[in-house]
Amino acid sequence: MMRPLSALLLLLALHAGTEARAATVAEVSSPSGVLTATLDLHEGRLSYHVQRLGEPVIAPSALGFQIRGAGKLERSLALTRQATSSTDETWEQPWGESRHVRNHYNELRARFTETIKPGRIVDVVFRVYDDGVGFRYEFPRQAAMDEVIIDDELTEFAIAAPATAWWIPAGEWNRYEYLYQRTPLAEVTQAHTPITVRTDDGLHLAFHEAALVDYSAMWLRRTEGQRLRAQLSPASQGWKVRRALPFHTPWRTVQITDSAAALYESSKLILNLNEPNAVGDVSWFQPAKYIGIWWSLHLETESWATGKEHGATTANTRRYIDFAAKHGFRGVLVEGWNPGWDGQWFGNGYDFNFTQATRDFDIEALAAYAMSKGVHLIGHHETGCAVSHYEDQMDAAFAMNERLGIDVVKTGYVCDAGQIERRGDDGKIVREWHDGQWNANHHLRVVQAAAKHHVAINAHEPIKDTGLRRTYPNWVSREGARGMEYGAWGNPTNPPEHEVNLVFTRMLSGPMDYTPGILSLQGRGQAIQTTLAKQLALYVTLYSPVQMAADLPENYARHMDAFQFIKDVPADWAQTRVLNGEVGDYVTMARQDRNSTDWYLGAITDEQGRVLQVPLSFLEPGLSYEAQVYRDGDGAHWKSAPFKLTRETRTVTSADTLTLRLAAGGGQAIRFTPKR
Amino acid sequence: MMRPLSALLLLLALHAGTEARAATVAEVSSPSGVLTATLDLHEGRLSYHVQRLGEPVIAPSALGFQIRGAGKLERSLALTRQATSSTDETWEQPWGESRHVRNHYNELRARFTETIKPGRIVDVVFRVYDDGVGFRYEFPRQAAMDEVIIDDELTEFAIAAPATAWWIPAGEWNRYEYLYQRTPLAEVTQAHTPITVRTDDGLHLAFHEAALVDYSAMWLRRTEGQRLRAQLSPASQGWKVRRALPFHTPWRTVQITDSAAALYESSKLILNLNEPNAVGDVSWFQPAKYIGIWWSLHLETESWATGKEHGATTANTRRYIDFAAKHGFRGVLVEGWNPGWDGQWFGNGYDFNFTQATRDFDIEALAAYAMSKGVHLIGHHETGCAVSHYEDQMDAAFAMNERLGIDVVKTGYVCDAGQIERRGDDGKIVREWHDGQWNANHHLRVVQAAAKHHVAINAHEPIKDTGLRRTYPNWVSREGARGMEYGAWGNPTNPPEHEVNLVFTRMLSGPMDYTPGILSLQGRGQAIQTTLAKQLALYVTLYSPVQMAADLPENYARHMDAFQFIKDVPADWAQTRVLNGEVGDYVTMARQDRNSTDWYLGAITDEQGRVLQVPLSFLEPGLSYEAQVYRDGDGAHWKSAPFKLTRETRTVTSADTLTLRLAAGGGQAIRFTPKR
Repeated sequence: MMRPLSALLLLLALHAGTEARAATVAEVSSPSGVLTATLDLHEGRLSYHVQRLGEPVIAPSALGFQIRGAGKLERSLALTRQATSSTDETWEQPWGESRHVRNHYNELRARFTETIKPGRIVDVVFRVYDDGVGFRYEFPRQAAMDEVIIDDELTEFAIAAPATAWWIPAGEWNRYEYLYQRTPLAEVTQAHTPITVRTDDGLHLAFHEAALVDYSAMWLRRTEGQRLRAQLSPASQGWKVRRALPFHTPWRTVQITDSAAALYESSKLILNLNEPNAVGDVSWFQPAKYIGIWWSLHLETESWATGKEHGATTANTRRYIDFAAKHGFRGVLVEGWNPGWDGQWFGNGYDFNFTQATRDFDIEALAAYAMSKGVHLIGHHETGCAVSHYEDQMDAAFAMNERLGIDVVKTGYVCDAGQIERRGDDGKIVREWHDGQWNANHHLRVVQAAAKHHVAINAHEPIKDTGLRRTYPNWVSREGARGMEYGAWGNPTNPPEHEVNLVFTRMLSGPMDYTPGILSLQGRGQAIQTTLAKQLALYVTLYSPVQMAADLPENYARHMDAFQFIKDVPADWAQTRVLNGEVGDYVTMARQDRNSTDWYLGAITDEQGRVLQVPLSFLEPGLSYEAQVYRDGDGAHWKSAPFKLTRETRTVTSADTLTLRLAAGGGQAIRFTPKR
Repeated sequence: MMRPLSALLLLLALHAGTEARAATVAEVSSPSGVLTATLDLHEGRLSYHVQRLGEPVIAPSALGFQIRGAGKLERSLALTRQATSSTDETWEQPWGESRHVRNHYNELRARFTETIKPGRIVDVVFRVYDDGVGFRYEFPRQAAMDEVIIDDELTEFAIAAPATAWWIPAGEWNRYEYLYQRTPLAEVTQAHTPITVRTDDGLHLAFHEAALVDYSAMWLRRTEGQRLRAQLSPASQGWKVRRALPFHTPWRTVQITDSAAALYESSKLILNLNEPNAVGDVSWFQPAKYIGIWWSLHLETESWATGKEHGATTANTRRYIDFAAKHGFRGVLVEGWNPGWDGQWFGNGYDFNFTQATRDFDIEALAAYAMSKGVHLIGHHETGCAVSHYEDQMDAAFAMNERLGIDVVKTGYVCDAGQIERRGDDGKIVREWHDGQWNANHHLRVVQAAAKHHVAINAHEPIKDTGLRRTYPNWVSREGARGMEYGAWGNPTNPPEHEVNLVFTRMLSGPMDYTPGILSLQGRGQAIQTTLAKQLALYVTLYSPVQMAADLPENYARHMDAFQFIKDVPADWAQTRVLNGEVGDYVTMARQDRNSTDWYLGAITDEQGRVLQVPLSFLEPGLSYEAQVYRDGDGAHWKSAPFKLTRETRTVTSADTLTLRLAAGGGQAIRFTPKR
């Protein structure tokens, strides 16, 4: 409930319009008083700033919009109402990194009204957690306008202390598949979110957004010094966003913690700022590992296209189903199963058919054979960016998937440097950015259509994750970063620091289908830049509820010792602890299996070896555990000795401290099982 | 035992003399293979490098000397012998941060002989630990020379990865009382050790020396890029060091860890590289807290000089003894107790008398009065830098101290910008640097003279600590950094980051008498830049076995709540754990009382508030503890609300995780007592 503005605050607000200095008009602190967000007016212009324990973190930063036909909605504003409220609730995830999520924040709703014509109204809503801040704009129904065309969002984030940033560029290429660069924050040009920042004072910040629905994605453009400004992904019509009132923007999020470990854990605020489950019961979705006809395609020993090398044949798929059944994998992904791959398909997916299989792929028989062995085929819907063409078929495709027990579908949007293509109102093809308003809506249409048929979506070359898995829990995973396929191409492969960079950047936004587990450590070019143990540790450190064992079955046969960990590790967790870590350097996580009392530990490092002391206090006190350790062997090194792996078993308790020795480019994976 | 060089190695060494590239001639790895130190010869020039898990940490760096009259001992060298050995022993400290110290290393002894006249010989000895490296030069008895005059030591430390450094300048002023500066390593000019370095890869290094005996202190001068070279403190004669053979240099030490927390713990290698106890039983020394007539002198409300304001009067001292007895402090320091303070004494201490008290200070009666209450006076020997003058009296002074139960003496070397003064062989006064060879020896003469009389030494404006407390455990503490007295002067006071900087720099070398506990938070100028809780936490985070409660008794009377922690906290520990920390940002330590099963936790931060998750896994599993918490109150801030303190009691176990919320410039102190 909004309550009328108090006399004092009204006075302040009016006063602010004539004063030289900004006046605070509203303020809200986090439940334990760690963070405080403040709204200020300066000659009618609206800004905010954020303090942590009394020190500035976000310096005064503008709020507002450039609105087509009506000018900027940022000046001549007065506070006309405000309300605060508190929430402390715990909700349960159907699947995830943790079963229970606490949502504990104080909220401020502040209404600003133009003091000049046309007297437009905008509400600014802040939710302040102890470890971060989310805010959004809400446009209520009002007399002054019934829709807005946003040419620019003026929201700023001015970081108060000198800082270093880890980021990838936005607006250059139409995907997220970059190596993260580390630069002074003052050298960022324009970045995708999440962008992670560490101040010289040791504060860790990450900027992102939550609940990107019917709106364009926010990039962050540096305008001066350490000041970042929202830059919305464009729309083909020339504006950025067009919406009828009432509506609200996505949440702009700032995670703020002291350590890198706490930063990862604070990303729950992104989930919390999304709406609850809107698709109903999703217990039909089973978090699970999968294998697939995939690595061979990137190796170019098999092909998507039909012909002699075609990978998606009935016989080959049966072989994968048998391997999956033997080793306990639930899913078998098959790419190239449908017509459309034989020509120049990327950025031109108009030949794709999503309801027919190629002639050498007996989908009916294979689906039945798989089900008879407790295995499910995983579907693949590569659109080649012909997105309306795909939408035309998707309902029928998901209905077929449902009938065949194909309850997970990997979608794809490979346009190379191009853009997605949609059919305009006039029937002509229009090009849009991956992360503009139109495609944000497309992704939700897909997910909602899939949900009706009990199909889960794992989107590749997708729009970035903004926590929508809370609202649409059948949107189970996505790619959206440089994955393991670069290890297949080998030109060059991902450097040793890449996966550690992902943990503290891309992974803050949600699950990623990185497709780890390449125990052969070799694609068709430069060798993969990890040790064997690190490949195992990726299953713990890079979370996805659909987790691939991406190597060829014959390669696993050569590494059965290491493969055991991949067979054991689950894809659904009761809880997660980040035990240590530094952005871009190393990280150690412990996760508890959701379906047993086992714990799993994963530690990975960059090109520098590490010696990490890890107290096992996450284990249940009083119990003895068998620790099955997969560690870098003596002398292991990603470059010179990547296969050196030592597997050993120890008995440990929660009072023990382990010394983890990670090789350069190495890692360590441990399964802890209570002893009877 | 040295064994004759193998034929292969001899070949390598000879070969190296004619080859263009450096050839490895000897190598030794740490017990777990983490670190490897390698000796190389390149055209007869000797260098070393250090790798960690296969990656370079110290790039090839020169070894050698510039020797007067005989030229450089660095080229035309050949390896003529080598031996390796392993040691794994655990020894017990009479007092310290931990009772038991493990000394676990592999050693390489390599003999190098000039292949040209005069055929000089030098041994290089490396001891390689998993968390650091120590090396020194040994000059055996030999025909080619019977003494050396060292004009320069050519030892280098070339840090392989781009790095940031925390350091204070050397060679500018004759003391260590600087604020630590953080700069790129490539902007260091000339630094005292320890100098702490963090690479962009997240490695933490600290460079220092161990066992500085009969030698000049090593400064580190940057010669180019990230290459540091030993720069020995000068001697008045123009050389740096003069020694008869055989002798060995101090150990040059490099601590190498992944985290700041591990860096602090790795400083045990400095202790380990010192010789065992040489003064016999020191059970007569009792680690303890003390108060004193001291803060009032710096406030200028009382004076060292005699007269109306004289602090060291019989009546005033009785008041302090009573306060000490009432609140359980063992020691009462009295400065200004002796003649010599009435003139211009600093840099000119020739009026000081160390065996007589001033007429208004009845030392005999006060000592007896103190002893009757279980209190010991603490002596004060300010030399005003008239060091030979002091040496003339010290035996008699220590004898008097012993007779009066004065078993701790604080020494002082206040020369302001001047140098210490000694009597030369001709009887004339000669000036020397604080940390040159002569004064290094002076300090040991004092400590050895004191030991004979069962007196412990706490040296102010001292030579830096190099772990000699292991060999001379009556050298219990020292200053050697900007202490709390700057808080009395207030012009300006130490900034909020100062104590955190000390933990990861100065404190790596050993105990510091920082004189914390100024609960009034005010001197005679700018306010002290900490909260009240942080003053308490300093007792846990800045270790000293003689730990002062430095404020005035009347100020403690106004803060009895907070004072309780100072009364409770011990000054001797069974073990220490660094629970988290970043250089210059924050640190949390837990220490276990050596005389009970209690644990104490201290956390301090810089100008940025912190929220730190701290698992209590250091507590004994299965026990319940009462946690007496002294934390920054809501809204506390070093600048605006430093006195806000919340004291509360909780019941906790080793399975709990505490959330520590530190104010800007704040801290937290906790006592954990097992519940019956």
